[in-house]
Amino acid sequence: MVMNDQPDKTEQEFTHVREGKPSMVDVSDKSANKRTAVAEAIVWVGEEVMSRLDGADIFSAKGPVFQTAIIAGTMATKQTSLLIPFCHPLPLEYADVKIVIHGENLIITCAVATTNKTGVEMEAMTGASVAALTIYDMCKAINKKIRIEFVRLLSKTGGKSGDFSAD
Amino acid sequence: MVMNDQPDKTEQEFTHVREGKPSMVDVSDKSANKRTAVAEAIVWVGEEVMSRLDGADIFSAKGPVFQTAIIAGTMATKQTSLLIPFCHPLPLEYADVKIVIHGENLIITCAVATTNKTGVEMEAMTGASVAALTIYDMCKAINKKIRIEFVRLLSKTGGKSGDFSAD
Amino acid sequence: MVMNDQPDKTEQEFTHVREGKPSMVDVSDKSANKRTAVAEAIVWVGEEVMSRLDGADIFSAKGPVFQTAIIAGTMATKQTSLLIPFCHPLPLEYADVKIVIHGENLIITCAVATTNKTGVEMEAMTGASVAALTIYDMCKAINKKIRIEFVRLLSKTGGKSGDFSAD
Amino acid sequence: MVMNDQPDKTEQEFTHVREGKPSMVDVSDKSANKRTAVAEAIVWVGEEVMSRLDGADIFSAKGPVFQTAIIAGTMATKQTSLLIPFCHPLPLEYADVKIVIHGENLIITCAVATTNKTGVEMEAMTGASVAALTIYDMCKAINKKIRIEFVRLLSKTGGKSGDFSAD
Amino acid sequence: MVMNDQPDKTEQEFTHVREGKPSMVDVSDKSANKRTAVAEAIVWVGEEVMSRLDGADIFSAKGPVFQTAIIAGTMATKQTSLLIPFCHPLPLEYADVKIVIHGENLIITCAVATTNKTGVEMEAMTGASVAALTIYDMCKAINKKIRIEFVRLLSKTGGKSGDFSAD
Amino acid sequence: MVMNDQPDKTEQEFTHVREGKPSMVDVSDKSANKRTAVAEAIVWVGEEVMSRLDGADIFSAKGPVFQTAIIAGTMATKQTSLLIPFCHPLPLEYADVKIVIHGENLIITCAVATTNKTGVEMEAMTGASVAALTIYDMCKAINKKIRIEFVRLLSKTGGKSGDFSAD
Repeated sequence: MVMNDQPDKTEQEFTHVREGKPSMVDVSDKSANKRTAVAEAIVWVGEEVMSRLDGADIFSAKGPVFQTAIIAGTMATKQTSLLIPFCHPLPLEYADVKIVIHGENLIITCAVATTNKTGVEMEAMTGASVAALTIYDMCKAINKKIRIEFVRLLSKTGGKSGDFSAD
Repeated sequence: MVMNDQPDKTEQEFTHVREGKPSMVDVSDKSANKRTAVAEAIVWVGEEVMSRLDGADIFSAKGPVFQTAIIAGTMATKQTSLLIPFCHPLPLEYADVKIVIHGENLIITCAVATTNKTGVEMEAMTGASVAALTIYDMCKAINKKIRIEFVRLLSKTGGKSGDFSAD
Repeated sequence: MVMNDQPDKTEQEFTHVREGKPSMVDVSDKSANKRTAVAEAIVWVGEEVMSRLDGADIFSAKGPVFQTAIIAGTMATKQTSLLIPFCHPLPLEYADVKIVIHGENLIITCAVATTNKTGVEMEAMTGASVAALTIYDMCKAINKKIRIEFVRLLSKTGGKSGDFSAD
Repeated sequence: MVMNDQPDKTEQEFTHVREGKPSMVDVSDKSANKRTAVAEAIVWVGEEVMSRLDGADIFSAKGPVFQTAIIAGTMATKQTSLLIPFCHPLPLEYADVKIVIHGENLIITCAVATTNKTGVEMEAMTGASVAALTIYDMCKAINKKIRIEFVRLLSKTGGKSGDFSAD
Repeated sequence: MVMNDQPDKTEQEFTHVREGKPSMVDVSDKSANKRTAVAEAIVWVGEEVMSRLDGADIFSAKGPVFQTAIIAGTMATKQTSLLIPFCHPLPLEYADVKIVIHGENLIITCAVATTNKTGVEMEAMTGASVAALTIYDMCKAINKKIRIEFVRLLSKTGGKSGDFSAD
Repeated sequence: MVMNDQPDKTEQEFTHVREGKPSMVDVSDKSANKRTAVAEAIVWVGEEVMSRLDGADIFSAKGPVFQTAIIAGTMATKQTSLLIPFCHPLPLEYADVKIVIHGENLIITCAVATTNKTGVEMEAMTGASVAALTIYDMCKAINKKIRIEFVRLLSKTGGKSGDFSAD
């Protein structure tokens, strides 16, 4: 069985597209090494939501809202390959979601690590996105115009294609 | 059993936060009616990706890339309540993901409908987000700087809180 | 928001294909009524497997093999909409998997019922298929040539398109 | 198709066992009404864990530990039918997990409600159990002898079999 | 703890049955090596469906129907251990679903690879089956008599039990 | 990227709590070795249920009830990381659920093994719990007062923190 037919030139960089159809990349002959990725999602929540979240009051709503988003984002990193069709399933060795307040924005970062044959960019991106979606869900009764902005990869390490850092 | 203890004033608008802890909203005494929601995700893919996607060539990669994102987004609408902690599980009656090209951006819309006691905003937002994440996955070998921008609710109808339209 | 654009003639019967892209059918304006479906899967296991399964011995392996397949098939009916991309999620009200021996074949039937706006053919087909796959898994160490044959719909009732019975 | 063959006497009360094989109960001809259930799980954590959880300190670990358990328990109520083989899938309308400290024990209650043809006892029991398992996971580095005790149904309402209250 | 009690002779070949009860095989002491498997599913769709799928027209329905089946089959390979009770969870390193037209039949092949302690036959069989079920779902409005035929293992490599090829 | 900031003293033993927020432990720099864990759940079912389960009659309900619980518990071990928020996903190499009768109690043990960087206590605890919940579901029509008692870890081996045995 030949599994790795050479794709034609045009399709080469769409790694998930071969002969006009989508496909999972064959990583079985690559070697495993440590991979990390960090993604960021910025959520604009607006003044009204922020004034309720950011109180000095220790009984503010920030606790439950932030912790729910952190947990949802972390759990989502583990479901990434069930959501993204051609993403390899990977046993993650680390996932961490952090949220900080910046003006009227919440800045979410999701860091992920594994020791495997392929990277964890999608896990980090998915974790950040689902944490952001959870913020929306927890706050949408106050402001339906909340927007998720700039879900993007901040950095990755490990793997043949080299490290990446979003300047 | 009293399930609907009145929350204190401060927490009232964080519908998922009661007495300092997160909680699912009790919708059991609401009446079911038709609910729709449409969300949008804009993905900046850059010139290099776009030149490959948008060829006149009928064998371009657009087919598999777009259809994979459409399918992933649709399937994600059905997994929303497994991803967002306090989101009610809802049997969806319609889900549709569309993608159009606009300059160097892909504009994804996800429309969802159900007849139920609570709305489908989160299903639409999640479907749009996962379609966007799938675009990232399919194109990241070409450009890791692809960004998801402006995941937001475009409109909703049905439900006591009234219709919503993002201007 | 117009959700039900009329599809062009050619695509009309591919209910999941609209404007050249796949899509979930909008059933939100249909009325709910009782739907049933029964599907069948025939698994040829061969003489060697059958002689071990069909012993008069009450301690034969039939118990665990059959019951594992029955349970797997039943659980799969509940996961159908997570497996089949444009299948509506439905709260099933009944699912039953039965297995009988016929020569060197196992005949699996999966019956499903719900009261909803759309049918349960896919749930019955999926339940029968996964029960058959489980038979394969439980017996493959004895005979890797086991084949699943004739997964098909036996009957359906309820719904606008009328009842169906396979001859 | 006759779906409701009368089971023999002996099996009548094992509602999930028919003709010597397990099966989902057919609820398709029952009528929908409001159902609630509350379950309780008591977790003995011991003195060492409790002294860390129950500090007056607002930076105590209680926040994250309790909230993680509350969220895990709530999410588990939504996955009940994927875990318990013959449990009907139900769109829950309410789920709430609470935790209080009592001596060296944590007392977890999980309340669930839906409007449907069958009850939500298993959802309440599963939510309480998974919240308890999460407490174990969060505290096991301190004390591996933590025990989950007395997962039980406290009450149920709705349904033909009548209301139930534990003593 | 003795995990590997010797099963009695009769049960030896039903690797998932031990002492009259089903059980997962203990592979913890086996060594990891590359495993591949290819399975095939043949779907008879009939003349009417085929005439619509196989048009020379580039806007034929083949695109969405085939690609949806390919994606569903690929995603199903990743869910195999959640569907088949005693199947080991495996991080797949490759999965590929192909569909070709042959007369009134669609011939689906699903190839899977991993580097692990146990084989991937079930992943290949499940991927082929779910792709076939998706074909049924996409085409059933035209012909409910579509049949899945001959889901079977074509080949496997790797593992102590040796390679297999269905001549 | 520094992933392993030193937590402050107070939080050190709550391995999942860092800087006041919950987090997955970073195990990426640990070495993989064989890990086992065994957990136990005791279910008090009462005299009435037991008299039906424990008949000399080979057609007693014990078969389906026990096997359903065994299968549900085994499948749950594979879903543990989707249920417990900060539990690492692990490809299990062995899982086995056993049930024995002791007076009016059912004693469930769940044994799990893997070769990995972190332990499988949670998988064993979850498998035992879900098997116990399934017993409740299968028998609740006879006795709603069934109680799950003493879910606890019996033993673990492997890993830096040493072996553990409950007295």
